[in-house]
Amino acid sequence: MQNQKIAEGDYILLYLSQRKTYLVKVEAGKSFHTHKGFIKFDNLIGKDYGSGVVSSLGFEFVVLKPLLRDYVMKSVRKTQITYPKDIALIVMFSGIGPGNRVVEAGTGTGALTTALAHYVKPNGKVYSYEFREEFQKVAEKNLTRAGLLDFVELKVKDVTAGIDETDVDAVVLDLATPWLVIPHAYTALKPCGTLISFSPTIDQIVKTVEALNESGFVDVETVECLMRGMQVERGKTRPQTLMTAHTGYVTFARKAAKTTA
Amino acid sequence: MQNQKIAEGDYILLYLSQRKTYLVKVEAGKSFHTHKGFIKFDNLIGKDYGSGVVSSLGFEFVVLKPLLRDYVMKSVRKTQITYPKDIALIVMFSGIGPGNRVVEAGTGTGALTTALAHYVKPNGKVYSYEFREEFQKVAEKNLTRAGLLDFVELKVKDVTAGIDETDVDAVVLDLATPWLVIPHAYTALKPCGTLISFSPTIDQIVKTVEALNESGFVDVETVECLMRGMQVERGKTRPQTLMTAHTGYVTFARKAAKTTA
Amino acid sequence: MQNQKIAEGDYILLYLSQRKTYLVKVEAGKSFHTHKGFIKFDNLIGKDYGSGVVSSLGFEFVVLKPLLRDYVMKSVRKTQITYPKDIALIVMFSGIGPGNRVVEAGTGTGALTTALAHYVKPNGKVYSYEFREEFQKVAEKNLTRAGLLDFVELKVKDVTAGIDETDVDAVVLDLATPWLVIPHAYTALKPCGTLISFSPTIDQIVKTVEALNESGFVDVETVECLMRGMQVERGKTRPQTLMTAHTGYVTFARKAAKTTA
Amino acid sequence: MQNQKIAEGDYILLYLSQRKTYLVKVEAGKSFHTHKGFIKFDNLIGKDYGSGVVSSLGFEFVVLKPLLRDYVMKSVRKTQITYPKDIALIVMFSGIGPGNRVVEAGTGTGALTTALAHYVKPNGKVYSYEFREEFQKVAEKNLTRAGLLDFVELKVKDVTAGIDETDVDAVVLDLATPWLVIPHAYTALKPCGTLISFSPTIDQIVKTVEALNESGFVDVETVECLMRGMQVERGKTRPQTLMTAHTGYVTFARKAAKTTA
Repeated sequence: MQNQKIAEGDYILLYLSQRKTYLVKVEAGKSFHTHKGFIKFDNLIGKDYGSGVVSSLGFEFVVLKPLLRDYVMKSVRKTQITYPKDIALIVMFSGIGPGNRVVEAGTGTGALTTALAHYVKPNGKVYSYEFREEFQKVAEKNLTRAGLLDFVELKVKDVTAGIDETDVDAVVLDLATPWLVIPHAYTALKPCGTLISFSPTIDQIVKTVEALNESGFVDVETVECLMRGMQVERGKTRPQTLMTAHTGYVTFARKAAKTTA
Repeated sequence: MQNQKIAEGDYILLYLSQRKTYLVKVEAGKSFHTHKGFIKFDNLIGKDYGSGVVSSLGFEFVVLKPLLRDYVMKSVRKTQITYPKDIALIVMFSGIGPGNRVVEAGTGTGALTTALAHYVKPNGKVYSYEFREEFQKVAEKNLTRAGLLDFVELKVKDVTAGIDETDVDAVVLDLATPWLVIPHAYTALKPCGTLISFSPTIDQIVKTVEALNESGFVDVETVECLMRGMQVERGKTRPQTLMTAHTGYVTFARKAAKTTA
Repeated sequence: MQNQKIAEGDYILLYLSQRKTYLVKVEAGKSFHTHKGFIKFDNLIGKDYGSGVVSSLGFEFVVLKPLLRDYVMKSVRKTQITYPKDIALIVMFSGIGPGNRVVEAGTGTGALTTALAHYVKPNGKVYSYEFREEFQKVAEKNLTRAGLLDFVELKVKDVTAGIDETDVDAVVLDLATPWLVIPHAYTALKPCGTLISFSPTIDQIVKTVEALNESGFVDVETVECLMRGMQVERGKTRPQTLMTAHTGYVTFARKAAKTTA
Repeated sequence: MQNQKIAEGDYILLYLSQRKTYLVKVEAGKSFHTHKGFIKFDNLIGKDYGSGVVSSLGFEFVVLKPLLRDYVMKSVRKTQITYPKDIALIVMFSGIGPGNRVVEAGTGTGALTTALAHYVKPNGKVYSYEFREEFQKVAEKNLTRAGLLDFVELKVKDVTAGIDETDVDAVVLDLATPWLVIPHAYTALKPCGTLISFSPTIDQIVKTVEALNESGFVDVETVECLMRGMQVERGKTRPQTLMTAHTGYVTFARKAAKTTA
């Protein structure tokens, strides 16, 4: 399905070390320059993915095929993004999969959008709202790079004014005032659809959970996820010294039918 | 795509509270009994998902459509399973998506298998190895219930003796001695394919990481993930008192081409 | 300084396993009964601390001398107590030591009081406020058992109405509405004295920090502490499966002089 | 007990913000220079602790009386030190208090030594071993500054060769090969004395716990402690973004009598 030879136009991940990786496009006749020397793309084209390549200064890079996680991490720009650990939870908790229709707000740089599109393809769609027009181009570029733009409709629109779609499988919120969108989300969701909201502060989760409880959602749950790296080496294994201690809280809920009194 | 009316033969999630949910099959003419009274399936058939239903003892349940997470959590039986937070990370780190071919070992009760199948459908496949024959039936039942058996080939086979498939996108290991499978995984993977291993002990991750480094993998990384629930209520918000402090470590790596000296 | 032979009237810690320990008083002619058989105190008197003793049913116990931590943990009764990890932080952050005068509120069962008394002896004093009279007896018993009652003045009094003492080194608050006591604490503290508050909820820490900032305190800091046990065994080492995920937040501040405008 | 007016020769903590504090000695006729301007000590002498002082560039500092924690944190130099959270646990778990005799190894820069001395005064003693002579001067300076040198005997000696003292209340180990010292610690401790070891790696705790089990210790327990800061502000409260994810593991044990077979 995926091609396994490096080709003109491919996005590749040049791997020097875990901390030094570059997501670049292969362009015949051109080179990629790093502080460890440059690499001629012509030397890569036609080789197997996973091959090593030596830079002009003698450093060995490995040419990797980018994964979803790489596209997500390299989308970081201009705004804070949710981390892979949070995106992983959001996707799993939402229950989405191939064929689903998902509303997302806001788009931001498209990191979370990329993940959602990856999981609803080949026949689903992500409707992504963002009122700040300048972000749309960034997101579009990131989605194009990941080959996922076809599965996304980018909308420059204020989601707090309403959601156009109906009967969607999930609504995923990563914005400053999620509680303002909850009633719209209820209307947009199909019966039993899921709502996921990601927020960094306590105040946001309190207001979000209250709005969910008042709007006809059940099974409301909020969690936080701490990921800690391990230094693994025989005789010296230990957790890493530093970690990201907080990104945000993930709140989950399901739409129930409204009881008529 | 999904039907939204409750139908004969559907699996439903009867929701009483976050701690009390039941995954059951709708069978016309029958009832489901709980300590809070029984519910007649005939009263549910034809209703919208998300509707409430009152038990014989007057308790209100909500009829939810099961999500991936519900199938995963309800697969727990006979053996320890990886938790949704770990499954979420495994799926995200593996980079798998619709159409991928994935080798998994061991199957166990099929909880992780269920998640992998969910994400490779509609045109991918999970090849799941398990040498303990008694587990196969349990996994088969759990996969059938989740409607995902078509995307899985269950193999009663000792994966430490070798992997039959080649050119696969990812190999996912959740077994006691993952390091014994690493060389086979290298052979089975396509160039740049990913390997993910889940293990509870330090000793296992040390041996796994050593085997990965010796077998031609790069970008080797081990993390652990702590998920903590929040009690969200205005004026009383706080983390929950108890949590699962450890399930296991997730190790990730990518296959590089072997350098010929 | 401490006697090292087990004597009539001593409190001892009978240790069967980490999970099974008993804090009991040695009484000549009597026995202590457990589900693993009884132990005659007469068989212990005169022996070295650290000795083993076999129960009537053949189980071996070790006779340990109780530590501060044992007295603290065995004070748990009737009300939730701060955990040793939190008490350790409270003591360290408060900066208290031998000779200090400390105000504490509320006393509860005296667990934190016990620790504070331990560290201000031999010539300091803890003034401990508690308006619920029924707790005073419990705390008195726990402090007596730990041999620390001489260093504590137990006061049945509502601390939100004011603090009698002045020029104290530290004020330690473990009560539902710490913010109501902050102005009194400012008055009671000597210049540069420390205030420590322990609270389980977010709402409490917000109100406490606001009150501190408004009342002339500086260096205000709030932390939470997660302690995780390790199962240490060659080849099987791993974190323990369950942990206490939350007890409370520790807030620290120092009294600054009030600037006259 | 402590003087509350700033005096010539005092060590003071100049507080600009939580991140910017300076531990300096008051010297009449001199000034202290910071990037925010200088402060003349003559302007401070005779003032109350907790007073504000304005620097030559117009920034306001608060003059605080250093606490144990300040001395500990400012002892950081030349070598990694245990953090206050770990020191707090070590002190609490050791059960030490006024009058105790404690053996420590290794001294390092004296951060942990400072804390131990603080808690055994006014009539106890810390015997601190360190074979690297260059550290002794640093530790001596740090202990002098904290006013605690009288309660410490600094020994330039390899503790793995043996411990001179006997009948001590506690042995506290913070060195690369604690397991080599366990048998000596057993001999040095009085019956029921406590041993505490602090180590960053898994390998160290495995070897330490094995040595403890083989050497006649009971109640062996290993924990790790994660401390996370909170940003507390109405409407914006959240955990801090970054944290120290790992310093080390604390292992605790008590000496039992050796059973003669």
